[in-house]
Amino acid sequence: MEHNFAHFREMLGEVIDLQLAAAVLEWDQQTYMPEAGAQPRAMQLGTLMRLAHARFVHDDFGAALEQAKTSAAQMDPDSDEAGIVRNVQREFQRQRRIPSDWVAEDARTTSLARQAWEKARAESDFAHFRPHLQKVIELRRQYAGFFAPYDHVYDPLLDVYEPGMKTAQVRTVFGTLRPQQVELVRQIAERGLPVDASMLHRKYAVQKQWDIGVEIITDFGYDFKAGRQDKTAHPFTTTFGVGDVRITTRHDPDYLPSGLFSTLHEAGHALYAQGIGPTLDRTPLLAGASYAVHESQSRMWENLVGRSRPFWNHYYPRLQKLFPRALGDVDVESFYRAINKVERSLIRVEADEATYNLHIMLRFEIEIALLDRSLEVKDLPQAWNQKMQEYLGLTPPDDAQGVLQDIHWSSGYVGYFPTYALGNLIALQLWEKIRSEIPDLERQIERGEFGELLSWLRQNIHRHGGKFEPADLVRRVTGSAITSEPYLRYLRSKYGEIYKL
Amino acid sequence: MEHNFAHFREMLGEVIDLQLAAAVLEWDQQTYMPEAGAQPRAMQLGTLMRLAHARFVHDDFGAALEQAKTSAAQMDPDSDEAGIVRNVQREFQRQRRIPSDWVAEDARTTSLARQAWEKARAESDFAHFRPHLQKVIELRRQYAGFFAPYDHVYDPLLDVYEPGMKTAQVRTVFGTLRPQQVELVRQIAERGLPVDASMLHRKYAVQKQWDIGVEIITDFGYDFKAGRQDKTAHPFTTTFGVGDVRITTRHDPDYLPSGLFSTLHEAGHALYAQGIGPTLDRTPLLAGASYAVHESQSRMWENLVGRSRPFWNHYYPRLQKLFPRALGDVDVESFYRAINKVERSLIRVEADEATYNLHIMLRFEIEIALLDRSLEVKDLPQAWNQKMQEYLGLTPPDDAQGVLQDIHWSSGYVGYFPTYALGNLIALQLWEKIRSEIPDLERQIERGEFGELLSWLRQNIHRHGGKFEPADLVRRVTGSAITSEPYLRYLRSKYGEIYKL
Repeated sequence: MEHNFAHFREMLGEVIDLQLAAAVLEWDQQTYMPEAGAQPRAMQLGTLMRLAHARFVHDDFGAALEQAKTSAAQMDPDSDEAGIVRNVQREFQRQRRIPSDWVAEDARTTSLARQAWEKARAESDFAHFRPHLQKVIELRRQYAGFFAPYDHVYDPLLDVYEPGMKTAQVRTVFGTLRPQQVELVRQIAERGLPVDASMLHRKYAVQKQWDIGVEIITDFGYDFKAGRQDKTAHPFTTTFGVGDVRITTRHDPDYLPSGLFSTLHEAGHALYAQGIGPTLDRTPLLAGASYAVHESQSRMWENLVGRSRPFWNHYYPRLQKLFPRALGDVDVESFYRAINKVERSLIRVEADEATYNLHIMLRFEIEIALLDRSLEVKDLPQAWNQKMQEYLGLTPPDDAQGVLQDIHWSSGYVGYFPTYALGNLIALQLWEKIRSEIPDLERQIERGEFGELLSWLRQNIHRHGGKFEPADLVRRVTGSAITSEPYLRYLRSKYGEIYKL
Repeated sequence: MEHNFAHFREMLGEVIDLQLAAAVLEWDQQTYMPEAGAQPRAMQLGTLMRLAHARFVHDDFGAALEQAKTSAAQMDPDSDEAGIVRNVQREFQRQRRIPSDWVAEDARTTSLARQAWEKARAESDFAHFRPHLQKVIELRRQYAGFFAPYDHVYDPLLDVYEPGMKTAQVRTVFGTLRPQQVELVRQIAERGLPVDASMLHRKYAVQKQWDIGVEIITDFGYDFKAGRQDKTAHPFTTTFGVGDVRITTRHDPDYLPSGLFSTLHEAGHALYAQGIGPTLDRTPLLAGASYAVHESQSRMWENLVGRSRPFWNHYYPRLQKLFPRALGDVDVESFYRAINKVERSLIRVEADEATYNLHIMLRFEIEIALLDRSLEVKDLPQAWNQKMQEYLGLTPPDDAQGVLQDIHWSSGYVGYFPTYALGNLIALQLWEKIRSEIPDLERQIERGEFGELLSWLRQNIHRHGGKFEPADLVRRVTGSAITSEPYLRYLRSKYGEIYKL
């Protein structure tokens, strides 16, 4: 019995080793790899992903999984063993439908597409990226085909990131959310209360930005002995195993929030990954419960902590001292209002909380249109710009600030964007629970103390990794399904106060 | 026929992809990986190496190789195809004797041993490294056992790095070399001509050292678009495919030659790797003809170019300008003599050319003693110090400057050291040939022009990669077997002039 499980764990461990090795190669590609390394790297990633997949869906592994299921059936459903078997079983059923050749072709395609995207974005040259994106989308259509019949062509893609979630559910949630967010943004605009955010566009030396970021996330509890931070074009967090969880960041010397908040955001992901129980190493449970649950963590540390008044009551004197020329004449209240200024803007990762989800809904609709062929890749920049006008009343001056701004599609991440908005909702569901259980949370944050918050998250969310499906996990912790009410309450309260609505 | 070969190349390519992926993971481990990443990294490397090995020695690959041999038999023996088949056939016969489990255990062991060595070296704590080294040596003994019967237990290990070379041959070459090098060093000491090298121990800002190194190796022809340089504890060069050949370096702010010459040395390796024909990508021929041939390249750029008078006639004004406080009062001739000062010293990588091979012979004898059990790992520091006294008249003040100075054993590289000395010999055999074919080579170097030298090396050595066995390659190019005469001529001439013997 125990032997059965050990055998299953070892076979699984090898598959995960290959996936984590691929993660190292991808991290390197986005941080340090020289230009001419793209072609061999694509081959290597193709081979690693194809082998990992082939071993995972092999009948031998299926047999080991069956035996492990027998063992796990007699265990506590909350045990590691039961959780691993549940997660792997779900993933096994999914992966069995995907041919290994598709996996290899996809890995090669996205490895090259990422490289092309970087160049295209730097030069605002959509044409350079277009053939790569066409191939990525074509592969996504093929992917959906492996899961036919489906309710919606987008369902199989969404399921990669949000196990169990359906397109129809997302539409329902977004249907509730959208009019209320639009209404809030309208009220704010109508109120016409001016917020000066010009100080955020002053000169901020990159090294100092780096230093304050490191200081803050160390205070959060991010362990640099089990991780590191590097520079990249598009910040991300990646796990190479318990003990090696890395974040990446970028800084803009002319705009403080860009680097600062992306650092806090990625640290939120990393705290989750560093908090996953070591007994779950070499299993897919390292990836966490879902992308939305991951986003609930990153958005919590970025926004609920990092854009809050108590947080800046603590850190602002330090920030001011670091940037006396930029912030010497700015008091903490003005700074707080500036970083929470509601403004229709072009760049998702720099959007305020009130408009953020609109950026997501735009992408969600475009992805669906690309998949159901109502939109062709060649017409994408135009469609993007039209929707930006419709949703946010803006037209990007170039594609770098429009359709090329995000790395996701180049990496094959179609179906991923909705998880950001869902993550926002889950973050607030958790936050209401946390505030009820840690009544003096605000005072702790005001003292720069995050230990109790992190412990709560470790205990309730992090340590479980992917042991529970996201909806189950949210229900276990909050007693509720995923819902937008806490999030809308938060937005109305926060912005009602700032904008005196 | 062509199909046979394509199938063989694809199967081979997958194996190489796995090996190159492992090389990325090892590079990361030695440059950026956080401390706590060691354990999962060891598992990943174990899996990658075991899978690469298992696929390579699989009967299916054997069958593909047989078919490729049939195709290659009808081709020009100098063709890529024939060269690939020769190289792979040799490697296949070797690898078939090694169990995959040994490969995985070795990869895990050395991954952890490297990490332990770094700490042990930093803290000069041999005891911390000892159990790891014991395991590494035990695995080496097992490895030799797979190749029994052999003439000498060291033969199978030597063969990993120097295909076709025997321990007895190395002993013969070293037997000729040693008395003559010892005699030269004795004459120099007896001559008693003082050489002042104190200026090399002044303050040299690390960033400026980095900059001048980059400038020089760019002049050499190292392509930063197809490579990069990073910092590490023990400099090395690594290949992730044609298009991604990286070097690593370290700098000592209190001793200029350490960083400077190791940069030139690694660049020599990297120029070789960058010059390998792109048609040899995804084959083991990327690794070059042998370690000794690789060392012939690195030692050539480091010493024959980088420690020569014409070289410094060109670069010294630049160096002086960069370090006015350290070198303002030093003329080029004094600098030239300082960097070529013959001195019995503790650290191999910083040894001058006249004493360098003595460091190698010491290691060669210790490795043999460890393998034939006449020396136990626990007695190693003592044995090291005794031999240092015997060969160089010195006793290391601590193990960091003694037995812990080199990374090799921690990485499982036993049998590697002799290739450094053999590389020195080959370098001079090539150099005599080059000087006869490029009569104004010195004047070109004096102008900072390396293009013709590099072209010659590309044409005669680099582009072939591992197409020919090292002894064949040396004979093709120089018409001679590997011999110490050119090297001894060079030493006598260079140091005879400097020390007025």
